Amino acid sequence: MAPAGKAMTADDTISGEAGIIEVLRPLATSPWALGLWDDCAALTPLPGTDIVLKTDPIAEGVHFLPGDAPEDIAWKALAVNVSDLAAKAARPLAYLLALSLPAAPRRNWLERFAKGLGEAQACFGITLIGGDTDRRPGPITISVTVLGEVPTGQMVRRAAARPGDVLFVSGTLGDAYLGLRLCLEPNLGAAWNLSQQEQDSLRQRYLRPQPRLALREALRAHASAAMDLSDGLVKDLARMVRASVASAEVSLPRLPLSPAALKAVAAEPALLTSLATSGDDYEVLAAVAADKAEAFACLAASSAIPLTSIGCIHTASVDPVVLRDAQSRPVTLGNTGWDHF
Amino acid sequence: MAPAGKAMTADDTISGEAGIIEVLRPLATSPWALGLWDDCAALTPLPGTDIVLKTDPIAEGVHFLPGDAPEDIAWKALAVNVSDLAAKAARPLAYLLALSLPAAPRRNWLERFAKGLGEAQACFGITLIGGDTDRRPGPITISVTVLGEVPTGQMVRRAAARPGDVLFVSGTLGDAYLGLRLCLEPNLGAAWNLSQQEQDSLRQRYLRPQPRLALREALRAHASAAMDLSDGLVKDLARMVRASVASAEVSLPRLPLSPAALKAVAAEPALLTSLATSGDDYEVLAAVAADKAEAFACLAASSAIPLTSIGCIHTASVDPVVLRDAQSRPVTLGNTGWDHF
Repeated sequence: MAPAGKAMTADDTISGEAGIIEVLRPLATSPWALGLWDDCAALTPLPGTDIVLKTDPIAEGVHFLPGDAPEDIAWKALAVNVSDLAAKAARPLAYLLALSLPAAPRRNWLERFAKGLGEAQACFGITLIGGDTDRRPGPITISVTVLGEVPTGQMVRRAAARPGDVLFVSGTLGDAYLGLRLCLEPNLGAAWNLSQQEQDSLRQRYLRPQPRLALREALRAHASAAMDLSDGLVKDLARMVRASVASAEVSLPRLPLSPAALKAVAAEPALLTSLATSGDDYEVLAAVAADKAEAFACLAASSAIPLTSIGCIHTASVDPVVLRDAQSRPVTLGNTGWDHF
Repeated sequence: MAPAGKAMTADDTISGEAGIIEVLRPLATSPWALGLWDDCAALTPLPGTDIVLKTDPIAEGVHFLPGDAPEDIAWKALAVNVSDLAAKAARPLAYLLALSLPAAPRRNWLERFAKGLGEAQACFGITLIGGDTDRRPGPITISVTVLGEVPTGQMVRRAAARPGDVLFVSGTLGDAYLGLRLCLEPNLGAAWNLSQQEQDSLRQRYLRPQPRLALREALRAHASAAMDLSDGLVKDLARMVRASVASAEVSLPRLPLSPAALKAVAAEPALLTSLATSGDDYEVLAAVAADKAEAFACLAASSAIPLTSIGCIHTASVDPVVLRDAQSRPVTLGNTGWDHF
């Protein structure tokens, strides 16, 4: 749409869907987007590829905080979806964006939101190809649908973990949970003996998840199964083993923790199990056959993303996931992870 | 996910995302859906095709009424998206569904919602391949992303109307607007001299839009440009001609009206212009070169969907859309269509 006459008002809010589209149009650089001038996008897949698809909306007050910077909100909206593509060994292609707002946005807010999307796009190698805007009461909601590609039949599945597989996770766990706690209760930083820099790094992990796209080749070459961690290791691992008709054993002391998380656990030991059940990690969980584990770790090492083996897959059992402490005793959890309902 | 232990509670609400997925799983009949057991869907495109994509969420209180039947809400959520595919001459392939609810749903509500989706799926030739559920305050929101296919490069565009083209619309205009008015003010039925059957048919037009998929062959063979009508003829036509760097002239007396709408206009003549600017028609607007108009109408006739020529495309002009009355005088409109902002 050309800018409508009413696209600007005195208080610098953008009134009119056309005005909103104008701010987002520079993000639509792919020919598939048709410049956002059409009702639909039209994507031409490469021959021999499958299209990998995911949609995961985020809402104010649930997935981000009302005071969060619009750049960070935009980043997170895209990153949580691209994280799924990363775990499936898919190359990001394009995304659709549905933006639901309770009131016309201020120009400054929307421009900063578009800036955050632009940063995320550049980082993830993906562009906007279509979407929708509407006004409705309730929290700001950003619904992203991402598309990725894999060679036909080669998406890494969730339901294909096999007994004997070694379990790996990328990066470190629980940082985003600690970062959220710090956003809500800044005094915890002192209680956990964290430097300002450590607090900032935890908050960044909450605000700016980093999809592990660099693991793509290693996952595709060697993983039996993989998924991203969004609702906590224990819950997501339970999903993987239930789908795979298997079970899993995890060594709690082997969970990879950042230096900041280690300090927080030292100050408050009960935090340790929370880090195994907290959401928003956006790390990759992968099951790899024992005879491929070394090759997997080796190929992943070239991506500069740390990998840790945390346990293994067994045959199906009453308890889908057993956590063990340093003495190999089973650990009982109060809460097993995030569930919206 | 296998049904979680907490999937049923005493008051028959479904608690747990896993319980919600169980109700929706029978809709995911395509192998691309991987039984909804994975994080992503994986779709294998036919060689030589483009994937046509659209996302258009609907929200309670904005796109449907709080008391609407769950079957109707589900139908509408899918139909408004498939309508875009129809206008682009695309064959529906699959859809993703993100369901955002302010509270855990009652089993009966969700089962009826799934039933409505099932009816719409069967009618439109499309199946569920993935999605997400979350809980957040605010209105129930259903975000559907649809995928369709066309032979490579053959999506019918919005921005390709040419001076001299004849403008066609399918079906009848304004019925959904009248149906919504009747839902909100049932007494209008008597004021407009409508039988119960006529009132029901108008309400059905609001509740159950019918994507004009049967026009696909005619559109692909002959249309210069096409789009679906969701925000009112005048506004959507303005979008088409602006994108096409053209203008349009429409004859108000030629707008196709249903018998019920004709009776309402006879009782309240001021309604006529409202019917040209009201949303939710989900009819197809097509521009067709004059020398193809007869072949287009002929091919469309075999689809049993009525088509009416309502005007023509001119070169670009200050007024993108001019409406003319029976005496060919320009008609000035107060409101030109629906805009969320």
